[in-house]
Amino acid sequence: MWFTSDNAAPAHPSVLEALTQANAGYSASYGADPIMEDVTARIREIFEAPDAAVYLVATGTAANALALACLCPPWATVYCHRNAHVEEDECAAPEFYTGGAKLTLLDGPDAKIDPASFEAALGFTARAGVHNVQKGALSITNITEAGTLYSLSEMKALTDLAHEHNCPTHLDGARFTNALVALGCTPAELTWKAGIDAVSFGGTKNGLMGVEAIILFDPARAWELELRRKRGAHLFSKHRYLSAQMQAYLKDDLWLRLARQANDRAAQLSRGLMQTPNARLLHPTDGNGVFAGFPREAHKAAQEAGAKYYFWPFNQSLDGPGDEILSARLMCSWSTTAEEVDEFVSLVKSAS
Amino acid sequence: MWFTSDNAAPAHPSVLEALTQANAGYSASYGADPIMEDVTARIREIFEAPDAAVYLVATGTAANALALACLCPPWATVYCHRNAHVEEDECAAPEFYTGGAKLTLLDGPDAKIDPASFEAALGFTARAGVHNVQKGALSITNITEAGTLYSLSEMKALTDLAHEHNCPTHLDGARFTNALVALGCTPAELTWKAGIDAVSFGGTKNGLMGVEAIILFDPARAWELELRRKRGAHLFSKHRYLSAQMQAYLKDDLWLRLARQANDRAAQLSRGLMQTPNARLLHPTDGNGVFAGFPREAHKAAQEAGAKYYFWPFNQSLDGPGDEILSARLMCSWSTTAEEVDEFVSLVKSAS
Amino acid sequence: MWFTSDNAAPAHPSVLEALTQANAGYSASYGADPIMEDVTARIREIFEAPDAAVYLVATGTAANALALACLCPPWATVYCHRNAHVEEDECAAPEFYTGGAKLTLLDGPDAKIDPASFEAALGFTARAGVHNVQKGALSITNITEAGTLYSLSEMKALTDLAHEHNCPTHLDGARFTNALVALGCTPAELTWKAGIDAVSFGGTKNGLMGVEAIILFDPARAWELELRRKRGAHLFSKHRYLSAQMQAYLKDDLWLRLARQANDRAAQLSRGLMQTPNARLLHPTDGNGVFAGFPREAHKAAQEAGAKYYFWPFNQSLDGPGDEILSARLMCSWSTTAEEVDEFVSLVKSAS
Amino acid sequence: MWFTSDNAAPAHPSVLEALTQANAGYSASYGADPIMEDVTARIREIFEAPDAAVYLVATGTAANALALACLCPPWATVYCHRNAHVEEDECAAPEFYTGGAKLTLLDGPDAKIDPASFEAALGFTARAGVHNVQKGALSITNITEAGTLYSLSEMKALTDLAHEHNCPTHLDGARFTNALVALGCTPAELTWKAGIDAVSFGGTKNGLMGVEAIILFDPARAWELELRRKRGAHLFSKHRYLSAQMQAYLKDDLWLRLARQANDRAAQLSRGLMQTPNARLLHPTDGNGVFAGFPREAHKAAQEAGAKYYFWPFNQSLDGPGDEILSARLMCSWSTTAEEVDEFVSLVKSAS
Repeated sequence: MWFTSDNAAPAHPSVLEALTQANAGYSASYGADPIMEDVTARIREIFEAPDAAVYLVATGTAANALALACLCPPWATVYCHRNAHVEEDECAAPEFYTGGAKLTLLDGPDAKIDPASFEAALGFTARAGVHNVQKGALSITNITEAGTLYSLSEMKALTDLAHEHNCPTHLDGARFTNALVALGCTPAELTWKAGIDAVSFGGTKNGLMGVEAIILFDPARAWELELRRKRGAHLFSKHRYLSAQMQAYLKDDLWLRLARQANDRAAQLSRGLMQTPNARLLHPTDGNGVFAGFPREAHKAAQEAGAKYYFWPFNQSLDGPGDEILSARLMCSWSTTAEEVDEFVSLVKSAS
Repeated sequence: MWFTSDNAAPAHPSVLEALTQANAGYSASYGADPIMEDVTARIREIFEAPDAAVYLVATGTAANALALACLCPPWATVYCHRNAHVEEDECAAPEFYTGGAKLTLLDGPDAKIDPASFEAALGFTARAGVHNVQKGALSITNITEAGTLYSLSEMKALTDLAHEHNCPTHLDGARFTNALVALGCTPAELTWKAGIDAVSFGGTKNGLMGVEAIILFDPARAWELELRRKRGAHLFSKHRYLSAQMQAYLKDDLWLRLARQANDRAAQLSRGLMQTPNARLLHPTDGNGVFAGFPREAHKAAQEAGAKYYFWPFNQSLDGPGDEILSARLMCSWSTTAEEVDEFVSLVKSAS
Repeated sequence: MWFTSDNAAPAHPSVLEALTQANAGYSASYGADPIMEDVTARIREIFEAPDAAVYLVATGTAANALALACLCPPWATVYCHRNAHVEEDECAAPEFYTGGAKLTLLDGPDAKIDPASFEAALGFTARAGVHNVQKGALSITNITEAGTLYSLSEMKALTDLAHEHNCPTHLDGARFTNALVALGCTPAELTWKAGIDAVSFGGTKNGLMGVEAIILFDPARAWELELRRKRGAHLFSKHRYLSAQMQAYLKDDLWLRLARQANDRAAQLSRGLMQTPNARLLHPTDGNGVFAGFPREAHKAAQEAGAKYYFWPFNQSLDGPGDEILSARLMCSWSTTAEEVDEFVSLVKSAS
Repeated sequence: MWFTSDNAAPAHPSVLEALTQANAGYSASYGADPIMEDVTARIREIFEAPDAAVYLVATGTAANALALACLCPPWATVYCHRNAHVEEDECAAPEFYTGGAKLTLLDGPDAKIDPASFEAALGFTARAGVHNVQKGALSITNITEAGTLYSLSEMKALTDLAHEHNCPTHLDGARFTNALVALGCTPAELTWKAGIDAVSFGGTKNGLMGVEAIILFDPARAWELELRRKRGAHLFSKHRYLSAQMQAYLKDDLWLRLARQANDRAAQLSRGLMQTPNARLLHPTDGNGVFAGFPREAHKAAQEAGAKYYFWPFNQSLDGPGDEILSARLMCSWSTTAEEVDEFVSLVKSAS
């Protein structure tokens, strides 16, 4: 019953097998390994983007920060939701990698950017010319930090606005595949067909040890990205171990299967909790995260039984009257079992 | 016969086994995994440094750049040899992480800093007060980029000079263990007892997939380093896979055995080549790298037989009279076999 | 009738006389001029701060950004009002000079920080440790961008909160003297006695050509500030021309007289407009700026007669029904005359 | 007898008169003043560059650092002589403004870049692709820090090399006019006709209080420069006082007359010293600086009589045998008089 984060889960066994296979003998370093050639070809195929530039890094923050640095100059601003990972959880890595750009925080329910909020911000930015930061890039997170989903048309509405103002667009896809299977669309539809210029295509939260791909649909800044990656110390010498993970991920639909499993467990958990008296959802359960409130007494019971998760927001306390509703973030992963979910739901139910 | 770099070698099988073991079940993320606790304790023990702060990152450039950023403010300079990795091979990562510090390039044979060159530079730095950059940190590489070794007293002479000028000291130990076994000293003797304040303790070039430890003997800036690591996007969510590699590395003297193997192969290669007519060493073979010149005809023969390595310097050409001496960098690793070395030597001998 | 900004006003004639005097013969450069010695002594005396470090720069943005860079590391955040000059009008200079720190935008009426908003932000910052930016510095603007005044106790409430959280404090005093004469307090009371650690003490908007002093009450980071100033290219070689302006400013209470004149004209303008039917104040007129709404027809009349000022907010239009209320920012300076004000008020009155 | 630097000299009286004239009444701020329009037109005319972008800043370091930031990305290197001002005297301002670019230090006698040194550096840069910093910009200083002059063909040889490698070129013209009158050429010949893309066109060292123009012959990056200037806090609100200085400078050939005076005094000083037994020139006297050695006893006599100047190099001492030769940098300015020079020469002669 470990729901703290999808990054607390192990890697899928296929990934470790792939590493073992990749480990045989010598290999060219720094991304010149033959596995990476295959990965690039495969990603271009999957995304129907034959010219896309594809790079691997080991953390989601690196993928986001490097991509944004290629899209937004230091004197401009990145538009993002105020609850976006790039704002809340990266200790100003985007500011570091862009060389001091701003983040303009947008509003909207369920951690989704309200187009009106974006439009207002665009209208305000650079109103006084050189005195203000300029319009930079739009960064959308899908699935969001609240576990919710932008529809393709919702994404398109935002990217259209961005492009009208010459702002390139970035998709933080730390949970890209969870969104993909939830929407039932193609990777191309979820990205460039929806107006996305650059993607952080996550693998770590969905069964890899630590690999994310940066995909630039317009390769014009590919060389710049390579230099930024090296200079940021994110170019791996023994790169084949990143390549091998990504290769395994994309093989035989592993990525899709793992994301489906995680989403299914979240749906099960969400349904289960909603049958509980006094439980309520903070946000729709669109992907692999459940954001739900239930009585303090039920929290105590679950935590005593070993369940691990975070309060959401963080500043709630187990002390106080047992029937007060406290809220939790419960993340499911590919390795979450139906039994774990059932056990958790039972504990909550019986103590509510 | 793959001598391009020690990072072209595979990881040691024990490392992959360790990953598989670490992969069981859930684990706390971002460095809070129990394996990391053990790694920290073990490194403190090995280095006889009970208060040292210990952090893992996945690239040597990250280790160097983050350590230097904690030692050198943006308006100061890092003293290093002009052939140091931080100067020549990191695409200005130290400049990026320090926020724009300079690197002052020092001279000395065999890629070792001549104390006179360092002293002259110290005397020149900040001569005009606020108009110049200030004295920052000293960065020593041992084993050097030319495969040579500083003795402990040579290191001490440099670190004493640095400390007289209030400059903290950094050891780029990408090949730390190769130096350690070559010197036959203790880790403490090679670091803090030799006046080193911060170490990049490398594992990647000696049998790991990609892990380096940053060790700060004075923990005063530990929190700053944690923030810089996160902000630089080098804090891994699934950190246990870094921890597990380092744990395996330090277990049962694996690190020492692997480094000895690599050094032995280099010694064998060096001896073999020196029996060749017209061959000569560019630098002493102190560790796992051989820097040697031999006739062009012998290069052709070796390369045709599949040998891989770099010219040193890079700008030499296979075209021209066959008896002209061209120079090569030949790196051995833990996985280099005695047979490979023999084969290479034979090829060179018979074509010289 | 030029009310666009107090920086559209000329310098006071005494300032030019001082420049002419300072121009005689040779002088030591880079701040070693004897006039600067006098300026430092005088500012220490005026601020009752015998140990304060005092530096001159030529723009308010430089004063703010350099001071904040000394107070806030790159991985922390500057708390400021969302309408602060450092946020809205400096094209991310604070982000540039701090090396990529964030600005956390606080709310509150009349461009004054609501302590509750600051407290909430402090409670939220760094809630997840290394994943978030850390608590940095507080920056208060007095007189604010809305022409309003913090009382000394309002300032103290904010600086106390800051210091409880180990956040150093900065006063953007671009209009310091306007605040000073409005409050009728001493410079010490408006700064360190109110909990301020560093001040941008403005002169440019109050009769100088272009000089601002940075005052650090704790000189511990004085040398760092000197290096940052030089590195930011804000150390003047012919520094005496900055010193001479500041010397003239502080002589015979010129600074106080000029600020009083400007405040008096604003009060006159505010009173005059408020006698106009349909006019209303957006913010109290505490200093030298009047923020007022009056009918579109009156705007047309004033602008046709040559009056210059900005709409506030900027995105209003002269097109539309004449009796609609549009809002303006009307800045008075030392050189604004009672006649100009009367003429403007008449124009508005007769067209309202 | 004040020969420390041309920045110890006063401003020319015409400059102060111009300030007084410019001070009348209100004026648009931030560079929108009508005087600036005239300055831009005049500079375009003088440089025969109708499309050039022209900006004013107040320090030479700002001009250099901002120009270089537009020419060299953070992952590239600026080629300059190892004695260039951008390397030795700006406390890493170029590194700060470029966001962490390197400076590659070139050799050559008399502080002039030897083309062979530049060519070698170009051949070495980026030899290993992404691992190295890339080829950035060339920065030439004319008149150099050693008071020497590049001929137009010497400049062209360097800029041709640069452009063959796609490196844009910068001229540090802190003493532009001294070079211009020494060469007897046109501003166009000294800049774009000699292959220069961007110029720091200095005024401060030649009679202004503190103004330098940045001229970009290709206006493609003009807006970027404006944003960098603002973000660097170098956009003056009361900009007219910069404009007025530059306008006065260019009026009635003032700039040319002042530079000729300074050069003439240096020539007189150089000739005079060379008639002294035991005196010798370190570098040719091409402009307004004399770099000369003469006996210690003569230094003592001059300094006792009140002469001010720097030793060159700095680390020489007045203690020791009187006939030992010590070297000095003696800078003349527009305000140096023939009498001062005669007096200095006499003192040296009689004590040598």
